[in-house]
This record gives sequence, C-alpha cells and structure tokens, in this order.
Amino acid sequence: MQRIAVDMDEVIADALGELLARYNRRQKTSFTKQDLQGKWLWQVLPPGGQKLIEGYLQSDDFFEDLPIIPGSQEILQRISQRYEVYIATAAMAFPNSFAAKYRWLRRHFPFLSSHNFVFCGDKSILHADYLIDDMPYNLASFRGEGILFTSPHNIGVSGYRRADTWQDIAKIFL
Amino acid sequence: MQRIAVDMDEVIADALGELLARYNRRQKTSFTKQDLQGKWLWQVLPPGGQKLIEGYLQSDDFFEDLPIIPGSQEILQRISQRYEVYIATAAMAFPNSFAAKYRWLRRHFPFLSSHNFVFCGDKSILHADYLIDDMPYNLASFRGEGILFTSPHNIGVSGYRRADTWQDIAKIFL
Repeated sequence: MQRIAVDMDEVIADALGELLARYNRRQKTSFTKQDLQGKWLWQVLPPGGQKLIEGYLQSDDFFEDLPIIPGSQEILQRISQRYEVYIATAAMAFPNSFAAKYRWLRRHFPFLSSHNFVFCGDKSILHADYLIDDMPYNLASFRGEGILFTSPHNIGVSGYRRADTWQDIAKIFL
Repeated sequence: MQRIAVDMDEVIADALGELLARYNRRQKTSFTKQDLQGKWLWQVLPPGGQKLIEGYLQSDDFFEDLPIIPGSQEILQRISQRYEVYIATAAMAFPNSFAAKYRWLRRHFPFLSSHNFVFCGDKSILHADYLIDDMPYNLASFRGEGILFTSPHNIGVSGYRRADTWQDIAKIFL
C-alpha cells in the first residue's frame, strides 16, 4: 500500500484564516487571504503586526481552535481506504502546540490512527511516497513526490505538481 | 552525511529505572532491572502493579524527570559531528508526554537541534540509515539498518546487531 504524508497547517487546518480572524478582531482591520497573494502574512501587516501573530502562534489554545480546510475530512477519509495516510506537522517550532494539535486531529479526523501522526521539525525525515504540503522547502527536502497545496504565500512557486483544493487531491488519488 | 535515528526511552532516557524507583517507593518493594531479564515490567509485578505503572506513564511530569542512560550524552555529541542525528520517540501513546519530552531533550541534549526531534507513533515513517532502538518491532518495520539497544525485555531477542551500552554504539559509529 502506498503512503501519503499530509501536512496540517494550510492543508487540513486553516491556521492562516484563524490568524487573520484574530488579528482583524483585535486591530479592527479587514485583511483577507486575497490581500496575501504571493506574500507571507508578515509582509502585509503594519509594524508590530508580526509580534501579535507570533503571540497567537505561541498560545496554548491556538492550534486547538482551527477551522478545517474544506473537503479535507471527506476526501482524506476516502483516501485512507486506499493508502496509508500519515499526518506530518512541523510542530517543533511551537512546542506549546503539541497537545492541542493532537486533540484537534483526534476530534476532526477520528478515522486516522494516532499512530500515524508525526510531529517533526524537518520533513526530510519522512519515509513516504507522497507529501502534500504548502511549504516548497518541505517538498524540496522530501524524498518522494511532493504535491504543493495552494496557499496565498506559494502562488508564484513553480516546479511542483499543484493542488488548489481537496477536490484536486481527490482527482490525483481517487 | 548518513543519518542516525535514536529512540528515547531505554536508549537515552531511563524510563524503566524511573518506573521502578517510583513503584518501589510507593509499594515499599525493591524490584531491580536484574529481576526483569527477558520480561516486561508488568510480567513481574503483582496484580494492580500495571495500573500504577500506567498512571506514572500518563502523568504530566514523568518524562521530564528521567535519568539519562550512561554515556549517551558524550557519545551522541561526538556522533553528531559525523552524522545527522535525529531523536525519534513513539510519543503518540502518551499525548501528555510531548511537552515534557521536548523540554527533557532541550535540557540534556542541547547540542541537538529541535528540528531533528520526531514524535511519532510508528517508526516505519522514518527515513534514516540507522535506527538505534530497544523495541524489536520498531526495528522490524524500519527500512534502514536497525541496532537493538539492550534492555531487560529484549535480552532473548536475536536477529539484530546489538549494542549493550553507548560504548558499543561508539565502536560502531566512531
């Protein structure tokens, strides 16, 4: 059985959406993902914005409350009947996030075994056939085939097979 | 550069020693590792012992206080100058342990980057040349070369290159 590793943030968990929502609420702004095409969040925020964002990311509950990327549950459930699915998240940058990420996965993806969760720093350590990830540098160090999941920051990146939505992922694997 | 993945419990962290110490203190017994040759801890404890042990493992602080397996710090530091060293621990069985394991590694192995920590369930996901582990089933599913680190429970196991101590590990890699 072939094995697919799936990133969490921006692939199944909408961390960017939650960051924007928290930032907009606090600062009474109205930034949207459309404002971020080809850019990282901190490139569009005014001075001081980056510090707020980092505070959200380091908080205990942030990763517990994330919205789900549309389609990821249904399609991953179907994919998991034909492939070994692993969830691989770069959690080491946010040591406070481990427990919250674990609970989020158990709650929203109960059909996946927690034995298939991987909290790592560097995705070159993954032994899998495919990696679905929004970060080009994760795909660059991965040994199998990388699939770039579209996120505002990677709009201009080429060189990888790309999926804009989970429907695109379904077309590849189902 | 070749890559070595190193298990935590019973390889660099003396979880068994700490379990015995806590159990003996509480039950006023004097079990030692010598009593466990070829057996798992729960095979030698009286009825009810297993439940105590599981309670220790699930507690928040257990993995924070573990003694260090002798030689692992010095030898791993020397090895890390010649190899990429990853720490790979099966943390998913104990979701409360993530943060404590992270802090333990940062405190006792500060020369390793946290980018090289992997908290997983199933070690077949590791892409590395070597895995040093006390669990035969972890070595069985690993794709590279497994090295069985001696622990009382695996005394009778054959079929793997074996290291009784970190000095044996040094002989292999240095």
